[in-house]
Amino acid sequence: MSLQLETLLACIKATAVERDARGGHAAEEKALLREAGLLRLSIPRAYGGDERSWQEIYALVRRIAAVDSSLAHVFAFHHLQVATVLIYGNAEQQERLLRQTIERQLWWGNGMNPLDRRLLARQTANGLLLDGSKSFCSGIVGSQLMTLSAVLGEAVQPLLAVVSTEHPGVQILDDWDPIGQRQTDSNSVRFDQVPLPERDVLRAPEVEATAFHTLRNCLAQLVLTNLYLGIAQGAFAEARDYAHTQARPWLASTAQHATDDPFTQNRFGEMHVQIAAARALADRAAELVDRAFARGPALTVGERAEVAVAVAEAKVLAHRAGLFARQELFEVVGARGTRASLGFDRFWRNVRTHTLHDPIDYKLNMLGRWALNDEAPDPQRYS
Amino acid sequence: MSLQLETLLACIKATAVERDARGGHAAEEKALLREAGLLRLSIPRAYGGDERSWQEIYALVRRIAAVDSSLAHVFAFHHLQVATVLIYGNAEQQERLLRQTIERQLWWGNGMNPLDRRLLARQTANGLLLDGSKSFCSGIVGSQLMTLSAVLGEAVQPLLAVVSTEHPGVQILDDWDPIGQRQTDSNSVRFDQVPLPERDVLRAPEVEATAFHTLRNCLAQLVLTNLYLGIAQGAFAEARDYAHTQARPWLASTAQHATDDPFTQNRFGEMHVQIAAARALADRAAELVDRAFARGPALTVGERAEVAVAVAEAKVLAHRAGLFARQELFEVVGARGTRASLGFDRFWRNVRTHTLHDPIDYKLNMLGRWALNDEAPDPQRYS
Amino acid sequence: MSLQLETLLACIKATAVERDARGGHAAEEKALLREAGLLRLSIPRAYGGDERSWQEIYALVRRIAAVDSSLAHVFAFHHLQVATVLIYGNAEQQERLLRQTIERQLWWGNGMNPLDRRLLARQTANGLLLDGSKSFCSGIVGSQLMTLSAVLGEAVQPLLAVVSTEHPGVQILDDWDPIGQRQTDSNSVRFDQVPLPERDVLRAPEVEATAFHTLRNCLAQLVLTNLYLGIAQGAFAEARDYAHTQARPWLASTAQHATDDPFTQNRFGEMHVQIAAARALADRAAELVDRAFARGPALTVGERAEVAVAVAEAKVLAHRAGLFARQELFEVVGARGTRASLGFDRFWRNVRTHTLHDPIDYKLNMLGRWALNDEAPDPQRYS
Amino acid sequence: MSLQLETLLACIKATAVERDARGGHAAEEKALLREAGLLRLSIPRAYGGDERSWQEIYALVRRIAAVDSSLAHVFAFHHLQVATVLIYGNAEQQERLLRQTIERQLWWGNGMNPLDRRLLARQTANGLLLDGSKSFCSGIVGSQLMTLSAVLGEAVQPLLAVVSTEHPGVQILDDWDPIGQRQTDSNSVRFDQVPLPERDVLRAPEVEATAFHTLRNCLAQLVLTNLYLGIAQGAFAEARDYAHTQARPWLASTAQHATDDPFTQNRFGEMHVQIAAARALADRAAELVDRAFARGPALTVGERAEVAVAVAEAKVLAHRAGLFARQELFEVVGARGTRASLGFDRFWRNVRTHTLHDPIDYKLNMLGRWALNDEAPDPQRYS
Repeated sequence: MSLQLETLLACIKATAVERDARGGHAAEEKALLREAGLLRLSIPRAYGGDERSWQEIYALVRRIAAVDSSLAHVFAFHHLQVATVLIYGNAEQQERLLRQTIERQLWWGNGMNPLDRRLLARQTANGLLLDGSKSFCSGIVGSQLMTLSAVLGEAVQPLLAVVSTEHPGVQILDDWDPIGQRQTDSNSVRFDQVPLPERDVLRAPEVEATAFHTLRNCLAQLVLTNLYLGIAQGAFAEARDYAHTQARPWLASTAQHATDDPFTQNRFGEMHVQIAAARALADRAAELVDRAFARGPALTVGERAEVAVAVAEAKVLAHRAGLFARQELFEVVGARGTRASLGFDRFWRNVRTHTLHDPIDYKLNMLGRWALNDEAPDPQRYS
Repeated sequence: MSLQLETLLACIKATAVERDARGGHAAEEKALLREAGLLRLSIPRAYGGDERSWQEIYALVRRIAAVDSSLAHVFAFHHLQVATVLIYGNAEQQERLLRQTIERQLWWGNGMNPLDRRLLARQTANGLLLDGSKSFCSGIVGSQLMTLSAVLGEAVQPLLAVVSTEHPGVQILDDWDPIGQRQTDSNSVRFDQVPLPERDVLRAPEVEATAFHTLRNCLAQLVLTNLYLGIAQGAFAEARDYAHTQARPWLASTAQHATDDPFTQNRFGEMHVQIAAARALADRAAELVDRAFARGPALTVGERAEVAVAVAEAKVLAHRAGLFARQELFEVVGARGTRASLGFDRFWRNVRTHTLHDPIDYKLNMLGRWALNDEAPDPQRYS
Repeated sequence: MSLQLETLLACIKATAVERDARGGHAAEEKALLREAGLLRLSIPRAYGGDERSWQEIYALVRRIAAVDSSLAHVFAFHHLQVATVLIYGNAEQQERLLRQTIERQLWWGNGMNPLDRRLLARQTANGLLLDGSKSFCSGIVGSQLMTLSAVLGEAVQPLLAVVSTEHPGVQILDDWDPIGQRQTDSNSVRFDQVPLPERDVLRAPEVEATAFHTLRNCLAQLVLTNLYLGIAQGAFAEARDYAHTQARPWLASTAQHATDDPFTQNRFGEMHVQIAAARALADRAAELVDRAFARGPALTVGERAEVAVAVAEAKVLAHRAGLFARQELFEVVGARGTRASLGFDRFWRNVRTHTLHDPIDYKLNMLGRWALNDEAPDPQRYS
Repeated sequence: MSLQLETLLACIKATAVERDARGGHAAEEKALLREAGLLRLSIPRAYGGDERSWQEIYALVRRIAAVDSSLAHVFAFHHLQVATVLIYGNAEQQERLLRQTIERQLWWGNGMNPLDRRLLARQTANGLLLDGSKSFCSGIVGSQLMTLSAVLGEAVQPLLAVVSTEHPGVQILDDWDPIGQRQTDSNSVRFDQVPLPERDVLRAPEVEATAFHTLRNCLAQLVLTNLYLGIAQGAFAEARDYAHTQARPWLASTAQHATDDPFTQNRFGEMHVQIAAARALADRAAELVDRAFARGPALTVGERAEVAVAVAEAKVLAHRAGLFARQELFEVVGARGTRASLGFDRFWRNVRTHTLHDPIDYKLNMLGRWALNDEAPDPQRYS
């Protein structure tokens, strides 16, 4: 797949600036990802998938994010929903839903946003019915299946389920217009009397969350981590390319070429170090995630805490490397790098938008409580 | 003018997000500035102007920049060109050009970019003729007069002159499409056989630059400083407003309201301190600029160096306060603050674009050479 | 006094490294300060003093701190106690205590530490008696008078008073052995049945604190500010001197001399900027303090808040400039600058010790509450 | 050895503050290290050693540095000299010198400082003689053998050799009195007609340095890295311990205990993240070093460059984590943590002294040249 991947990335990159300006849905590019077989990577071989490790998938998230972090986002979120089925689903659900994913080459959308409790499930004579709304449903446009969380009666914990995005009661709103990550298809969805058969409920509200269940948070947070990191790497690559091909040394510099300027070199050195550190932690966290994922329901609370901490460490570093790189990109390209046609601002808008997913102050706080007080990360709090 | 100014700022703010998205020329808003009498502030009373101090003008630059940094830019650059006439022009030129500015309520454009040496002046039987191009001519659209620098024969130093922007040989290109400062009218200009009468030459190439002449750099750098600072203050104000009206505390916070969250409070504290420091240095620099400007041709090289250092100190602080505030803005508003309709990204795009005017590394280097080696700032190098 | 001051500073500097190593009391140097007339600066002309502005006194604190921050500390704290008498004392107390200070050329010590509530006052048939302890009594060794706060019965607010340090019941412990600010004489004091005549009570516990009363906090916080800033300036001066006389360019540098190295220059530029910003804010705060001090009891709560905010802004900047400079000092002098005989570590130890006086996190928090929520600084909390 | 190691570390820690104050030679503690068998870790099993991986040795450097970074330094430098023999020595030299090291339980000293070219070798009728001086000979006091570099005639490259520290012509000066790393025995050494038999020459000046030879730099730089990291970990541990046992929440905090204060928690979180990142990079670099070391003379220039870059990345992170932790230590312990008896300043003095070994600006520059221009690290420049 290696050569093919290079070509795929080149295709995506060619239109990334223009599509970012346009926003909306990247139908053609999502079709390319599907045709390249990238939708089956996380699916076990038993169901016809490639059963790649999370390490491999995250590495790919980074490579895609370096050229187009919106597409990397929908790619990663597709696999996060597959993981959701693998974590919460029973054998029959896994077999049925994942085989279907392979056979029909489906895209999955995400309706799990825990902060939005407006989607309600209710028992009727004909079974469960879904009504209400869900926001930030990444990857929803062009998907065929979606995971979702819904509030059932007085239950504190939501039920988790799978629904066909193509059901007529599922209406995707045209309300995704952010300053960055503009093609992640993170629209809101309205549900109008959408039936939910028992066999599509992944977790009933009364089932207590196990350490393995909440490992999904770690998988999700590590998606973000690798998105930030990929953006940093993309910004670095663009800055490097521009420095060699277009930049000029400043008039006060004694350098012949911009790449010989000592301050420019040190700014690249600094970016390099930050990216290297974030990558080392992200790789280590992915290794721990793979190991924990393999443990399945046997995963202990203590083991899960170690994974969550490793993921949080990596996320903090990647958050900063991302924010730093998108700023440095400009310091090293200079004033002429602000032409809108270059589209260098997209790295900033993308990473700035996405790093606000959950606040870094509270991520550090969680790490501080762990390091100072041996307090395990609370899975209810995005950890 | 005070009440009127508040109203003016409110009008400008109301359309700032939309105009920023559109880019191009803000004809209506520039008309409002003109009608409010803001174009005559820097003009001596002797010629019918208000003769306000630079301290007052810079304070106004900040206030306008807080709501629209593009308009603040053209406002400030208008006065920079007036200052150019006051610095380089002889008595007749000052009288003629500035009276005209008052009477016709003219806008000035800037064609002084010293890095662009493509505009040539040549002696002909009929006097000087201008041919070639000039880039980054801030304020040029909708202006009636412009200052410019042009290369005459083998002369190292350019000649400086004034030209009517309305001359048919002056063609404004439609090439200003940056990621920020989108309405500064900083288009390129083509000159095709534009006659330059002797009486409009402000400085012949052979005239040696005095300390007072190069004070123009300080005035220009302090414009940038106050633009950055105004953007920081605008971002702060928006963040504060959003925190009170729309923000919610994070789910891991024990605060009732976002404004009670300790981390949010400290981020505001940090922004406040950075802005306070930048403002103190900017005010001090403006005071020195006023004093030096009043000295006129008597200004010594040593006095000029003190001013240039004070301006550079302020610029470094404002640069950082600006970059910091536009980032913090997002940390404190959180994920929902990335809706494109809020337009919060404009602070970032504006300050990031503009802070690339000249590299901060070399600004620090100049300050280091001064502090360590008593080397005076070199006026050839944007100091 | 100017020439004399230069000489005085040179004398103090000559032994600063050695005395810092030794710790303990700087009797000779304190005698020099007294002989130079520096103890009467803050005392009104009406009582025989020089009645200098706080701006002048703080400027002097910085100059002394640049060579010896322990002596600057005792000098500043002497004047803080004089201010305490001016703020809390009645006309008779001011006249008596301050004339005495002039006539006997007294040093004042500080026993006001509000966090230490172990010193108790009780009413007896013979009047008030003091028993207990007080820690961190800066300037106590070699002083003749001291201010103090003591708990009287159930009163929440302490009483404030003046006591003769020479009374036999006042015992100075030999317990001041910190890592920095080693000669500030900040020993603990034991009080054993020390009589406190009514006429020496500056404030009874039941007297409500006015805005003018709590201005003392601002004066004290601005002492710290100027100490940090002076240390930063001293570190800068030593680094500059060493760079010119002893430093060599690193083997990978193309510079002929250490002072030509671009990275070294930028580190000096950075130090310079930080110091310039802290100084501008410190000067502005001192101006506000002078103005507020002159207002006396008429000072309003709102005016006092403005002063406290300005002082806090300056303190945050000076805190950082101090910590930064003492670290940069080493970066620019390099490995050979770590010889103990050079004593460069004293800048670090001094500023690190002293910047822990009250936590910067809560200083920022106070500024954040002010900037975000219009909450005035709480005088009970070191503001 | 695990239990024994814990005990050993406890013993060393018990006297660390006091020995640091005293400076000089830690004879007893070095004897403990020797008795614990720690001097043979890097020696191949073929010669009677333990043949531990560098990963293991570096991990141990960190653990020792956390309690006493001077002892960690001499321990690490002992093994660096063993590595020197393994890298440059022929089979006979390795066998003879390392067997001797095992049998006599020798300590090695370091006389390799390449910046000091005062030690001269000259050919005489009786063979080579050494005369001159060498500075910064870490571990020299109490050693029995030392490696050294000496200038032979006009040769540009020094010869490398081994000499008995006990030879009467070898005189150790009493000139090591720095502000930190006070017990590393890094004294200067005078050589007076010290004979150097051919068989003790490890490398003649005319032998060209191979990639494997210059791998020694990487080993040395990774020693520094792990020392900095160990100091950071030690500072963290002390801060954590103090926070739980002695610290009090600040009066403006609503926390019951210092460890519940949100700002304190976040400072711990920040330290934790920085240490985690530095550790991940240090571990990765050690793995690469082990692999490269195993390649022996087959190591290519390209492979060596990868190792050098990985080491430099780790060093930059550890440098910063070290400087950061020793500062944060104080922020979280507060004013009462500055008592000299606690000795918390030693972390600062140690890491600040040692991080000046070679300038971080040029380390970043090397990384920038690599990342931007594909320039391999220059082994002549501490890379």
